[in-house]
Amino acid sequence: MEYNEAYSRYVGMIEETIGTLLPQTAVECPADGEIPAYLCETMRYSLLAGGKRVRPVLLLAACEMLGGALEQARVPAAALEMIHTYSLIHDDLPGMDDDDYRRGRLTNHKVYGVGHAILAGDGLLNYAYECLMKNALAYPQNLMGHVRAADVIARRAGVSGMIAGQSIDLLSEHMEPEAQRLCYIHAHKTADLLTAPLLAAGCIAGADGAQMEALSRFGACVGLAFQIDDDLLDVEGDAQEMGKQTGMDAQRGKMTWPALFGVAQSRARSQELWSQAEDALGSFGERAWFLHAFAETLRNRKK
Amino acid sequence: MEYNEAYSRYVGMIEETIGTLLPQTAVECPADGEIPAYLCETMRYSLLAGGKRVRPVLLLAACEMLGGALEQARVPAAALEMIHTYSLIHDDLPGMDDDDYRRGRLTNHKVYGVGHAILAGDGLLNYAYECLMKNALAYPQNLMGHVRAADVIARRAGVSGMIAGQSIDLLSEHMEPEAQRLCYIHAHKTADLLTAPLLAAGCIAGADGAQMEALSRFGACVGLAFQIDDDLLDVEGDAQEMGKQTGMDAQRGKMTWPALFGVAQSRARSQELWSQAEDALGSFGERAWFLHAFAETLRNRKK
Repeated sequence: MEYNEAYSRYVGMIEETIGTLLPQTAVECPADGEIPAYLCETMRYSLLAGGKRVRPVLLLAACEMLGGALEQARVPAAALEMIHTYSLIHDDLPGMDDDDYRRGRLTNHKVYGVGHAILAGDGLLNYAYECLMKNALAYPQNLMGHVRAADVIARRAGVSGMIAGQSIDLLSEHMEPEAQRLCYIHAHKTADLLTAPLLAAGCIAGADGAQMEALSRFGACVGLAFQIDDDLLDVEGDAQEMGKQTGMDAQRGKMTWPALFGVAQSRARSQELWSQAEDALGSFGERAWFLHAFAETLRNRKK
Repeated sequence: MEYNEAYSRYVGMIEETIGTLLPQTAVECPADGEIPAYLCETMRYSLLAGGKRVRPVLLLAACEMLGGALEQARVPAAALEMIHTYSLIHDDLPGMDDDDYRRGRLTNHKVYGVGHAILAGDGLLNYAYECLMKNALAYPQNLMGHVRAADVIARRAGVSGMIAGQSIDLLSEHMEPEAQRLCYIHAHKTADLLTAPLLAAGCIAGADGAQMEALSRFGACVGLAFQIDDDLLDVEGDAQEMGKQTGMDAQRGKMTWPALFGVAQSRARSQELWSQAEDALGSFGERAWFLHAFAETLRNRKK
């Protein structure tokens, strides 16, 4: 199957699953088990804002590569996108990055107000785990695999993962750039949530230790390279093409790779990491064709 | 065993478990799997702020009443307190209730700033599920029970539970009081997180359908009565004794039971609900002695 076709198929599964888990509704104070209309709208606004679905696609692709049941991976993939989306909503809030635009649209709190944006984020985070639990119970023959997947996601998204990275990032604004601190931020704020779908797929598909190790290395390299490229795009990118303002990192006094190591060395490090990511897939042979192509696409992105 | 002694024993287990799950740390950018010092401090500040531990005590007491393994229920109890605490941190933020004090101390964002308070809340919410998953994996012989408990907690805490209640509450500020809406807010914003520990205990202890039904009724009655009393205390309570400002609901234009039905009728409704809560425990006989005494204590509280 051709890459674009496979990608569209994964995205189609993800959009359909999200639509099923979070359907549009008009009932203000609904019956038990349903989501109130306004809360649902605030969550859908950001979840359906047209992201690239990088994390859920990684989950589905890794699951298929490992011979796992794609049907069992749909909800975990959607849950991961919910977690990613909640982190963006909260990151954009006043007190955090205080952004007015995201992906070329007004940020959640600019449309619904700060209070409802906080709840939209909380709602997406909590609903991710609610969906993971419901999905685990729907596949009792693979219950252990699903609980391990949820455990991996919680750890990588959490207080020793993404949230840890966000916290150190926020603490480090206007500090003198420093390598150890910057590595910590990139590893946790970005790479952990790219490794999570790969490892979750491994848990669901019953991967062995060596496979988990390879997936973990691939995720870490892709994550760090992705973030260095992001820092570079903020320095060099075109605001209109990116759908957000560029040069913001410097303006905010954010620690970035180019600020610490310079543009040339950052480019070299990124190239090296993308190569290491390719190498990490070696043991999967031909079956890793999609992940290879996916990494290549991320590497060549302009926004 | 005497009530106060049993209560102290439960609280002791909860504090010890929280201390193990979230120990104080001094490492700023720690090794994998550990929580950065500052983030940890922001979470501990609110989690160890001296709450009554109502929800985790309910979980332990219900588990013991049902003959379940208390050891298996410790982490879920602590996780529930984390969820309760995150909701308070986020509720206190500007854009939500914008409170400066909680339990007689400065609120989280007043001490650490809005950004870190958002992350402290996100961290506690996510860590609750991380702990639930780790705990589930630690008891593979009762894996299904633990996943069902996590599912119950996620549903009651989430977008058709507590967060749904918070959303409708926020939407309803300065609206004309209206009974259906107020019932929705109370049922979800308050009662759902009091029912969650009872049902989670039932899942862990393997309760049957009739027992789950009885626990659910007890939780719903206690939750609604508790919230009506809270509304009454805000009208009539003593600010110093309560450790927070009173009369705030009216000032904010919050919908409350006394505002809608008057003080006398609210008192009557609360009495009736406390009686129904007692009745709901009937089928458990003598074994429910602690839950009876607990309800009695909540009923007689002055803050």
